[in-house]
Amino acid sequence: MDSSQFREAAHSAIEEIANYYDDLPNLPVLSSVTPGYLRPLLPDGPPQEGEAWTDIQKDIERVIKPGLTHWQSPNFMAFFPANSSYPGMLGEMYSAAFNAPAFNWICSPAITELETVVMDWVAKMIALPECYLSKGEGGGIIQGTASEVVLTAVVAARERILRRRLAHMEEGEEKLDKMAEMRGKLVAMGSEHAHSSTQKAAVIAGTRFRTVAAPKEDGFRVTGASLRKTIEECKKKGLEPFYFTATLGTTATCAVDDFQGLAEVVKDYPDIWIHVDAAYAGSALVCPEYQHLTPVLEHFDSFNFNMHKWLFTNFDCSCFFIKKRKDLIETYSITPSYLRNTFSDSGLVTDYRDWQIPLGRRFRSLKVWFVLRSYGVKGLQALIRKHIGLGEYFHSLIASRKDIFTVLTGPDFALTTFTVNPPKPRGVSETAADQPDPAHESYTNDFMADAEGQYRENANQVTKEVYEKVNSKGEIFISSSVVCGIYMIRIVSANILAEKKYLKRAFEILVEAAEEVVKAKGGEQK
Amino acid sequence: MDSSQFREAAHSAIEEIANYYDDLPNLPVLSSVTPGYLRPLLPDGPPQEGEAWTDIQKDIERVIKPGLTHWQSPNFMAFFPANSSYPGMLGEMYSAAFNAPAFNWICSPAITELETVVMDWVAKMIALPECYLSKGEGGGIIQGTASEVVLTAVVAARERILRRRLAHMEEGEEKLDKMAEMRGKLVAMGSEHAHSSTQKAAVIAGTRFRTVAAPKEDGFRVTGASLRKTIEECKKKGLEPFYFTATLGTTATCAVDDFQGLAEVVKDYPDIWIHVDAAYAGSALVCPEYQHLTPVLEHFDSFNFNMHKWLFTNFDCSCFFIKKRKDLIETYSITPSYLRNTFSDSGLVTDYRDWQIPLGRRFRSLKVWFVLRSYGVKGLQALIRKHIGLGEYFHSLIASRKDIFTVLTGPDFALTTFTVNPPKPRGVSETAADQPDPAHESYTNDFMADAEGQYRENANQVTKEVYEKVNSKGEIFISSSVVCGIYMIRIVSANILAEKKYLKRAFEILVEAAEEVVKAKGGEQK
Repeated sequence: MDSSQFREAAHSAIEEIANYYDDLPNLPVLSSVTPGYLRPLLPDGPPQEGEAWTDIQKDIERVIKPGLTHWQSPNFMAFFPANSSYPGMLGEMYSAAFNAPAFNWICSPAITELETVVMDWVAKMIALPECYLSKGEGGGIIQGTASEVVLTAVVAARERILRRRLAHMEEGEEKLDKMAEMRGKLVAMGSEHAHSSTQKAAVIAGTRFRTVAAPKEDGFRVTGASLRKTIEECKKKGLEPFYFTATLGTTATCAVDDFQGLAEVVKDYPDIWIHVDAAYAGSALVCPEYQHLTPVLEHFDSFNFNMHKWLFTNFDCSCFFIKKRKDLIETYSITPSYLRNTFSDSGLVTDYRDWQIPLGRRFRSLKVWFVLRSYGVKGLQALIRKHIGLGEYFHSLIASRKDIFTVLTGPDFALTTFTVNPPKPRGVSETAADQPDPAHESYTNDFMADAEGQYRENANQVTKEVYEKVNSKGEIFISSSVVCGIYMIRIVSANILAEKKYLKRAFEILVEAAEEVVKAKGGEQK
Repeated sequence: MDSSQFREAAHSAIEEIANYYDDLPNLPVLSSVTPGYLRPLLPDGPPQEGEAWTDIQKDIERVIKPGLTHWQSPNFMAFFPANSSYPGMLGEMYSAAFNAPAFNWICSPAITELETVVMDWVAKMIALPECYLSKGEGGGIIQGTASEVVLTAVVAARERILRRRLAHMEEGEEKLDKMAEMRGKLVAMGSEHAHSSTQKAAVIAGTRFRTVAAPKEDGFRVTGASLRKTIEECKKKGLEPFYFTATLGTTATCAVDDFQGLAEVVKDYPDIWIHVDAAYAGSALVCPEYQHLTPVLEHFDSFNFNMHKWLFTNFDCSCFFIKKRKDLIETYSITPSYLRNTFSDSGLVTDYRDWQIPLGRRFRSLKVWFVLRSYGVKGLQALIRKHIGLGEYFHSLIASRKDIFTVLTGPDFALTTFTVNPPKPRGVSETAADQPDPAHESYTNDFMADAEGQYRENANQVTKEVYEKVNSKGEIFISSSVVCGIYMIRIVSANILAEKKYLKRAFEILVEAAEEVVKAKGGEQK
């Protein structure tokens, strides 16, 4: 392919992509292919001779599109959104054009320097405390995913506590043995509702992992008291807690841990690294009405949120802010001779490879720059507020049918979670069936506990069936989760095409499905 | 930005990108900005109101381009190449359009299934043993960088040996303690010339690290005997070697370890995971004349090479092949309730998140598919052979001036490494100055060892000066390295625009620089 063929192919691709976006509301959000659909559509191996682009392009329609789940569809209400945007796509195009694994400054100064500047822009935009700006001892870096960020933090935290505790020892076998022994006693902690990435990071780092309780009565939030309890339990067993993932917007319910309470605990345990994972909900911090959440972050060690979720920047783009960059560099810096250069040796430049696990890195800051400039802060605020409003609207619909649904949490950051009420068996007295969900009441006696157990089992069953029925119809895509034994449905509609009418329709689909499930069970809802 | 504005912006971007590629040979390969150049060119924070694309696009010229090091320039001869290509860029465009963090099958079946198919295509194309195909117990996955791959392998290897050794123990505190104790004795190994990623992976995994000797007399290759020696030394100290990175094309000299010898050692130590890192040179395996290297890989555990280096696929694209995928899944699989789904539970689909560290993943297989189809196997072979030929040509130029340069290694996979001969001080007798580089001779007595020491010191100094002078002139970009105490210059010209004339010019620049350096020292070369 030469440059004139590329021009032709790329212009044609742009038209196809723009048409795809125009057409998104009309496409079924969920692919209906069955496992293994793709292999029979392709030959057994690559062609010997090159093919024309027009032939390849045709296969996008034939082979790829039927197998896509359309995350940008307004009917995508599952997980959290992964927003793309037109400026984000332009960023990816230029990034691919300036293709470079820019592992140090001289490998492409613009890649490093734009990243430092836009991460400062982002930190200011979301009102992070000054300690996270690059002008002091901190700074921001773009990594791929929140999982990578959490692992990066966990390993840096593990090495930091070992450095601190064993500073008195000389380097050598004895110290290595002591470090190994200590590593085995280290405990990484996360909310029982924290994303699985913390547990996975602990596996990779070779440390233990403990969940911190965040029960329903605390709104699924980790409180200072709960964290302190876990720490003390660990200490009693001779274990050493060294890291905790605090969450601003848990995956299941968008709960926000009690940061003030956690900050109090940290004062007593300064060697525990607190990382705040705001992967999804952190984007709301562009709005002043959420910025009361940020001053307390100065007491913690690091923070991240994913612009690729809710800030209209194509995947991948996880913004990781660190209070003391030396906490990363002291773990991740290794400089073999083939990477040495006068700029790095001078100490005047940032080599982001020393802040992360991989060596090479893509030019991701371009898309951030394009998005921030195309929308402006006010444009981003308007989109976030629109989604928050849509969340309130959907919540009001669900709350309007207390006969069918029980709201569990929300609307929080555009997410509402709810359960489906179990059917009342025919002939059961109104009084018994009128019983509200006992989980919503405080209770102390065994009778109520048993009643809750039975109610919950029935509610879980019916909620799961409704969930599966809705997704199998394929008009909308939603997800479910289990928190504290409660099976629930989560609806979040926060992508760039989200509109009231789609949420209205989602609600109707849910009502229909609930009625069908109840009918099939031979019961009726209150 | 709406879709019509996107069309306009994107078409304009395509023209700018195509023009950039047309213009590449005329651009100075190395940016001449000084550290900190970018910040003063931009405001202190993001704009409040959105800006027009035409204003943003102008800033690419003003702010970004002056700070780019042009990896696609034919004058880029440093490190290893990071080839982009037109089909690769089209792949990135569609990947951005179909934006999805496809962490499991249902999140976009096409993303998972195309990856499985094209990784099988790649495995066949480079003649990997059948055990690395997905139809059996193995398979391929695209990860971001070789560093990620190595870490993924190291941690999986660490957990595999612990599982095997402690299979008899029941789960619980006692087993966790025992695991921690064992982890502290584990040793990851890599060639003394292996990429720094193995050492970094050992830090992250919390294990020890030992280099395996690969001296000059062995061609900088790790032999079976050398690996066995390191293993036995570790065992004697009560340590447990569990992992070794074998290299097909070391970073400094493109040395290929003695795979047959290593395979013999492995028979005696079946718990040691052997990963073969072919990051750069692996691309040459598309040519049958290199495929004698692959049958032995069946004795090892995993293999990777970076299509983003020498196979014309935009960064990032590291192809990781595993012989037994369960060795990854048993370490990396964690399934919280919000990720459960009927497809994954059925076991009929691949969830690549269980083969890797991050959860989300980009649609990277599209660019692989486009590249394989646009070039065809023959097209890729032709490009690789062209670069191999250019390497031979450059080597012949260097070898033609034995008065100035001494070839250290190569041409291997288009890489030649060499040193600059130190100047002969004025007035020294011809006989003494005629002395050839003693490093190239075998010697046994102290006199020769001293002579080599002095010669090497002088040669290192002059080679370093020549290297720095060439890069400071900025017409070509080259890199240097140190192996076994020898400071050398590496020249590899293997990007898509590489041509004989650029290597001819690079040679002239090197000769000029060498003559200037020698003259400045008041000496003359032989």
